[in-house]
This record gives sequence, structure tokens and C-alpha cells, in this order.
Amino acid sequence: MKIDGSRLRSWATQLLETWGYDPDDAAYLAETLVDANLRGVDSHGVIRLAAYRARIDAGLVRPRAEPIVERSGAVVRIDANGAPGQLAARLAVDELDGLVATHGIASAAVRGSTHFGTAGFYARDLARRGRIAIVVSNSEPCVVPFGGREALLGTNPLAFAAPASGDPISLDMATSTSAMGKVLVAQAKSTAIPADWGVDAAGVPTTDPAAVTALLPAAGPKGYGLAFLVEVLGGVLTGAAVAGDIGNMYNDFSKPQDVGHWMLAVDVARFLPLDDFVARMDGLAALAHAVPTAPGFDRVLVPGEPEEATRRARLAGGIELPDATASELAALGTDAGVAFPGGAA
Amino acid sequence: MKIDGSRLRSWATQLLETWGYDPDDAAYLAETLVDANLRGVDSHGVIRLAAYRARIDAGLVRPRAEPIVERSGAVVRIDANGAPGQLAARLAVDELDGLVATHGIASAAVRGSTHFGTAGFYARDLARRGRIAIVVSNSEPCVVPFGGREALLGTNPLAFAAPASGDPISLDMATSTSAMGKVLVAQAKSTAIPADWGVDAAGVPTTDPAAVTALLPAAGPKGYGLAFLVEVLGGVLTGAAVAGDIGNMYNDFSKPQDVGHWMLAVDVARFLPLDDFVARMDGLAALAHAVPTAPGFDRVLVPGEPEEATRRARLAGGIELPDATASELAALGTDAGVAFPGGAA
Repeated sequence: MKIDGSRLRSWATQLLETWGYDPDDAAYLAETLVDANLRGVDSHGVIRLAAYRARIDAGLVRPRAEPIVERSGAVVRIDANGAPGQLAARLAVDELDGLVATHGIASAAVRGSTHFGTAGFYARDLARRGRIAIVVSNSEPCVVPFGGREALLGTNPLAFAAPASGDPISLDMATSTSAMGKVLVAQAKSTAIPADWGVDAAGVPTTDPAAVTALLPAAGPKGYGLAFLVEVLGGVLTGAAVAGDIGNMYNDFSKPQDVGHWMLAVDVARFLPLDDFVARMDGLAALAHAVPTAPGFDRVLVPGEPEEATRRARLAGGIELPDATASELAALGTDAGVAFPGGAA
Repeated sequence: MKIDGSRLRSWATQLLETWGYDPDDAAYLAETLVDANLRGVDSHGVIRLAAYRARIDAGLVRPRAEPIVERSGAVVRIDANGAPGQLAARLAVDELDGLVATHGIASAAVRGSTHFGTAGFYARDLARRGRIAIVVSNSEPCVVPFGGREALLGTNPLAFAAPASGDPISLDMATSTSAMGKVLVAQAKSTAIPADWGVDAAGVPTTDPAAVTALLPAAGPKGYGLAFLVEVLGGVLTGAAVAGDIGNMYNDFSKPQDVGHWMLAVDVARFLPLDDFVARMDGLAALAHAVPTAPGFDRVLVPGEPEEATRRARLAGGIELPDATASELAALGTDAGVAFPGGAA
């Protein structure tokens, strides 16, 4: 089915309010999810709502939890304290906003958190405020280290964003080649996958999605090294759980996830006037756009441009949800007495 | 030929003194180069001395140049002002050391610089002082953007390092799949290269090293996105030259390189006690070492471990230099009246 983005957001907001969230918090959480859907990152969109509900039911996420904040110099440490990742991350962004104005650069560490949607959401928010931002999060192990045959670290995303005259230029990447969601889609369709996506139980790269037991890091030792960097910043430094101690969002209801996030905000204006920076960014983007294309490509893009194009298309034409997702959302709506709006806007 | 690392360093120090460097500066510069050789990164070692000499002769690098420093909050901006990259970077590290103690996190931007050796050298220096460090530098274009057939950005390295109980855990990676140096080695040996290293003039990936006109980014859009991040921080933000405006170290003597570097230092102790952090790092490394190996691997390593093993082996057994490099160094030595020491220690 196809659904209008703003209708989906309104519905998700209402739903989250019935789960106990403050209206403002519910709207923010819904915004992070629907923004992912609009940008084509459906794996991090409203499909997550059922798991979020299950973790509230298990008492592992508390909609009215109050995160605990400690500040020191240009650093802020936040214990999510049972709040969902998105609300802990919003608090981190707001704290950074003040600290970076004072110091020129600032960092936030969040522990005791959960899945927080896409890392890029927070990076772009900071970029719209004139900051360069880096945002990382650790996550449940599902990726082998280079040379290993069992998972050690998660897909450990790394996002950055920087101001430009239009949309921020932004990158939001898993440090693995692919995502487990894509392997499952190939499995459902019985199609082969590229040999660099995952390994079988013997640690051998496989093209059979049904044989995949763990993902491969992007570019071998480089992706593994970047995932390690994300684990050091997001897990070791924040005081959150590390590697196998992280609670799996979908199948471990014995404990909180205790995921950690780390954010950096850089005040561009401390380095050069923001207008100059934006002009230089636009100049770099223009250079990229002018590069002649390789066979099979229409245009060279800058990071974030494909997702911005998808967002514009979906804002205009709606978001396509798979039937299974729509059914799951409809069931959540029925349980809460907030009917899921069928059909397009 | 094989040469002892400390003899090589002493000789390079003497050589650099005859070029006009202060003894202390000469020793530091030599240390950065020989450290690269010891770690197996010969492309960034003493092989660079001939090019460094050529740029001094062209008046583009001045051994006694004084970099210009401006501080604001937790940020320091440095104009290398004709000094070589290594000495500008050393100053940045020293400035960061003070700023990070005050603010908990600090950043340095260097513009007007040159090739500075390996980014990891400075990251590890900061890690040995109890900091987590990220160091990047932009560089001359030689890598196509994803979907392009001409080079836009450089190999744009990204390094990080973090304290552990032994050597710092560290990553120092090009954001391209490979380095042009490796393509040239394959060309000299007439051996095929992997298809993801580079493209030919039509933008098509090639296994013929002689046909390579530009390198490919690691993992396609991910490596391109990371190279863009490095260009934004190292070039756009610092005020250095960007992309094609960077002067090529080897074949453009019409202007300074005007490379830019960006560094971040994080004071671990602002987040958690350093001893706790080190124990958590060691725990993560132990988890990595315990992962069962994939076929063809003896042990899962942590980032930086292969280079540390090479360093130990070369400290004990000496550094193997190709004949062509040894001849070039011998000629530089003859010119300066500082005989290149032949044979092992």
C-alpha cells in the first residue's frame, strides 16, 4: 500500500501517545521514523514500531523516563535511563547546541540507550544549525571481524553532515557491506546475493542468502577498523554495553539493550565565516557534479543526494509500505484504538 | 638492501639538518618517516625524501618557516606558512594537548600544509597521552567519485587511535581501495591487479595496472562518502586548497601544495576514568582475539596489530629498502655530504 508521509507521521504520533509518550516526544519519535521512510531507509522507519512496543511491554523502555545529564567542559554525558534512543539523542543534540557555541567544538556520549533510528537524522539536524556533525552508535553483533567467522560487532553506523546552501551534505553508512534486512529480502525472493555481503557458518563468503550467518565488513579490514572506531566511541567511551553484551532489540527481552551513541558537533564559524564555508561546500559539490560519468551512471552525486531525491519523490508521491508492514501497523493501531489509515492521502 | 631503523633515522636526521632544519625538527621529521618504514608503510617512509628535497629547492617548503597559530575556545587554527606538514602537525598535536585538558575535547585545523607522512603517527602520539584521536588530511586528486570516470578527491586518509594497556589501538586507512603506489608496483612486475582497485580512461574497472588512470573508492559510495568527509574537514573547513586546487607533490612545482589537516582529541578521563577505559579496551581486544577464524586466517587481530607486528620485526631485523630507493638516498647523501650508510647495522 501507499501512504502519504504526513498522514503516516500523524498516525504514528497518535499511536505513540497512547503508549504513554508525551505529545511532543511522540511527535519527535514519529518524525525520526517517517523521515527514514521518506529517505528510502525503510529498515529504520515505521517497521520498527512493533519492536518498540514489545520492549515497552517488557518494561525495558519507559516512555516517561527522564535521562540523566552530566556536563563537564565541552563534554556532556547522558544516561538514557530507560528512555528510547531517539529521545536521548534529541537531548544530546540540544545539549551540544549550547556547548558548541561556547567552546567551538563539543561532544555528547549517551549510554543505557536503545535503537535510535538513523544516525544521520541527528547529524543533519546539527548541520542545519551551522555545525559539522559526526554521529555514531554501536549495535548488536551481526558482522564478522576481518578474518573471523563469527560476529563480533554490529553494523555500527557512522553518519556525518555539513552545512551547504541547500540540503546538508550528509553520509549515513553501515560499516558492513550490506544489512541483514537485505539478506532476508533476498532469502524471501530466493535470489543470490553478492559474495561480499556475508559468510556461512564456516566463515566462507556465500551467495546463498539462506546460508548467511553473519555479515562481512565493508572493504574488509577498513570496514572492520571503522566498526571498531564506532565501538570504541559509542560503546567503550560512553560506558554502554560493548559487543556481545548489547541486548538484541528483537529477541532478547531479558535486559535493556544498553546501546551507546557518540556525537561530535563542530562550530564552522570558529574556523571560517559560515558563508565562506557554504560557498566552498557548494564549490566542491559543483566539482563533483561536473565529473564525467562512468558507464551506467547518469550523474556523479554528492553524499546524501540520492536520499534527498527519494525524500522529494516520496513527499510528493507517498511512501510504499509492504503488505506485511501495513498489516503489522494496522494491528498495532487496533490494539491502541488508533485506526491505521489505509490507502493514499 | 637491509638497514637498521635507528641508523636510518640518524642518517635522515643529519641529512635534514644539512637542508636547513633545526636539529630537533630534523629528528622529528626523520622519526615520522622511519616510523612509517618500521610499520611496513614504505610508501610514506624515507622514499619521500627526494620529493621533499625538490620542494625545498623550488622554494615551496622552507625549513625554518614559522607556522601561524590562532586559538579560539577549544579550537586552534594553524597556517603552516611554508613549513612542512610534519612540523605543522607536531605543533597541532602540542596545541591540542593543552586545549583538550581544558575543554575535554579539542580540534586543530591546519592549512597551507604539505604531505605530512602518515596520519596515524599523530593519532597514536595523542593516544599515548590518554586521548582518543581522529586525524585526517586531504590530498591530490587520484580517486574517482562513485559513478565517475575522472579523479575528484585524493586517497584522503582517515586515522584514529585510542589508548589500551599495550600499544594504542589504531587505524590508518586510505579511503580508496588501494594506493597508486601498489598499482605502479604491479605495473613494474606486469601482474594483474584486483578489479576494484582502479578504472581505465573510460571509467571501467580494469585488472591491467598499465591502464589505470584513477583509483576506485573503497566499497564504492561508502569510501567516496568518507573521502568527502575528509575533504570537508581537511580542506573546506581548514581553509586549505580543495580537490583539484591542491598542488601535486611530485609534478607541480608552480605552487605550494596547500594541503589541509584536521585533528580531533578527546580526553578519555572526561567520560570515564582512564583505567576503566583501558580495561574496557583490553576486554574488547580480548573478545576480538577469541573470535574463531575464517579459512586462511590464523588469528583475528585488532586494528593496528599487523603494523605493530611489522614494527617489532623490523626493529629487530632491519628495514628492507628496494635498490632504487637506496640509490636515491645515496645520491641525496652524496649531495649533502652525509654518506648513506650501506649494509645492515
